[in-house]
Amino acid sequence: MMIRICFAVLYLLMPAVALAVQANVNLDYNPQKNTDNLIPFSAPLNSPEVRDDRTVTFRLRAPEAKSVRLAGVAVLTALGGSDRSTQFQKGDNGVWTLTVGPLEPDMYIYHFNVDGMQIADPSNTIAGFTAMPPYSQLVVHGDGPAYYDARDVPHGLVTRHVYQSGVTNGQRELYVYTPPGYDRQKSYPVLYLVGGSGDLPSNWVYDGRANFMMDNLLAEGKAVPMIIAIPNNQVIHRNHPQHAELTFDLFEQELRKHVIPLVESQYNVIKSPKGRALSGLSMGGRHTMFVGFRSLDLFGSFGVLSAGDTNCETSIATFLNDPDVNK
Amino acid sequence: MMIRICFAVLYLLMPAVALAVQANVNLDYNPQKNTDNLIPFSAPLNSPEVRDDRTVTFRLRAPEAKSVRLAGVAVLTALGGSDRSTQFQKGDNGVWTLTVGPLEPDMYIYHFNVDGMQIADPSNTIAGFTAMPPYSQLVVHGDGPAYYDARDVPHGLVTRHVYQSGVTNGQRELYVYTPPGYDRQKSYPVLYLVGGSGDLPSNWVYDGRANFMMDNLLAEGKAVPMIIAIPNNQVIHRNHPQHAELTFDLFEQELRKHVIPLVESQYNVIKSPKGRALSGLSMGGRHTMFVGFRSLDLFGSFGVLSAGDTNCETSIATFLNDPDVNK
Repeated sequence: MMIRICFAVLYLLMPAVALAVQANVNLDYNPQKNTDNLIPFSAPLNSPEVRDDRTVTFRLRAPEAKSVRLAGVAVLTALGGSDRSTQFQKGDNGVWTLTVGPLEPDMYIYHFNVDGMQIADPSNTIAGFTAMPPYSQLVVHGDGPAYYDARDVPHGLVTRHVYQSGVTNGQRELYVYTPPGYDRQKSYPVLYLVGGSGDLPSNWVYDGRANFMMDNLLAEGKAVPMIIAIPNNQVIHRNHPQHAELTFDLFEQELRKHVIPLVESQYNVIKSPKGRALSGLSMGGRHTMFVGFRSLDLFGSFGVLSAGDTNCETSIATFLNDPDVNK
Repeated sequence: MMIRICFAVLYLLMPAVALAVQANVNLDYNPQKNTDNLIPFSAPLNSPEVRDDRTVTFRLRAPEAKSVRLAGVAVLTALGGSDRSTQFQKGDNGVWTLTVGPLEPDMYIYHFNVDGMQIADPSNTIAGFTAMPPYSQLVVHGDGPAYYDARDVPHGLVTRHVYQSGVTNGQRELYVYTPPGYDRQKSYPVLYLVGGSGDLPSNWVYDGRANFMMDNLLAEGKAVPMIIAIPNNQVIHRNHPQHAELTFDLFEQELRKHVIPLVESQYNVIKSPKGRALSGLSMGGRHTMFVGFRSLDLFGSFGVLSAGDTNCETSIATFLNDPDVNK
């Protein structure tokens, strides 16, 4: 009788334990820990494997390769830039391995370099789909979900709109985050968020997790409810010879003719510069400077992130020297 | 004077021409034609390149490789399954090339096989992000946008919900398509759409383009407006040893406890089996059979696609022999 009860209790506990951590089933904060010791579906082996001590093992089956290295700016910086620390060792079974770390808790982008060929990790299901070739993501956890993870807090919605643009002559997409409890009777401020070269608007959701950051900030009372509108600021091929000259004018037109009118017709928002912010990173930071700063009739707040412009006194001299700017 | 006018006309025409076809700028139906002859941002070279005659050239820079082949079930079937036709040839510059086709207009998934290592094409920006390692997509166009392309028709919205599941003990996602002109005063039928092993709900949008198919069908008067709800039907790791026994019960619980209640509390829908359909492909087809057919209190319509069950008379005998099923 006692044994039967124990079995019954075990049976009840088992599903909850077995299902605790599962990449691609839940939006797990620690998807590469591999609690179950199972190889991802369709993958040749486990890579990367992240341990509790934040060391990481990468694996690649490549019996004919002569050299395998880890590549990726952020992950190499985190490893101290030592070239030797990125060389994989080949095992007798044709599987190359590299163990690194401990690494600071963060999300890293990486590639493998196989005899000079840069590829996404063929075993890692957490990959990036952007306007660039695919890459792999390494998620190194701290002691629990981070500020960018999906926690058990009220979640806003992310809605994808598709519209015809007369500026780029085609169908384009726009993502809009509405905060939890979005109320059609209120008027919200809008943050227009724009990406770097090679980013698509979906990357602010799947890679940048702007929606989860905002959910978490709102749950902690650290932000006011707002709409986040994420347009596609790729308005001309990044390798077009006239990219630098054309992109700012085209993106300004796209904002004025399509993006802002769409957001303001479909959401309850404050329709003045006080209620509109523009921010972005890298190319998006430059769009903020070179489109936003000359569109003070549209925007009242700005965030320039990693824009890589070291000569602002010259490049935006007109803006900086305009006494009306501070009005 | 004549020359000046000509230049002025050219100048006015140029932007429209230059911007006509641009992968990752617009949602172009023909993204790999490469009208501009520009290499994608961060890619080593152009691959794949699709011509008007529907021949396709793949390229890979791999100077040390001994053998490069094209891999992927659908694309090899389209090529007639000839193994010789999938071998790349190496050029003096270390770039391997393969030209195939003409291919039937369609979307194909493919990999490169480099000395036995299966990888996504390192130059192709159109890649798949699923619960499987990344893959590459080949888009072969017909004479214009297809039934699955983003056309200049009214578009519905796709909204991503995130919720806490007591069934899988974690945060999960659900995508909901609302048709163009969605009216909060009406009641819509709901199609619950579920994916195969390794599919995430986002793949019905980015790969399967269910939303654009519905937009196009509605524009042509070939469908009635409906909600499409796309839950994550990965409820247990696909390689879990008890996957087959556990998945049906878990997914039924997920539908009953979370998915249907969420949809019916946030959208105006018909709340009876007459208004609910369940359909899916591969594993999703089996979920339709083994969860849907035993849940006639929930669903009144079914679509079983490519479920790979050749012995239905045995596997769903109870359902087929139940005289109440046809009521």
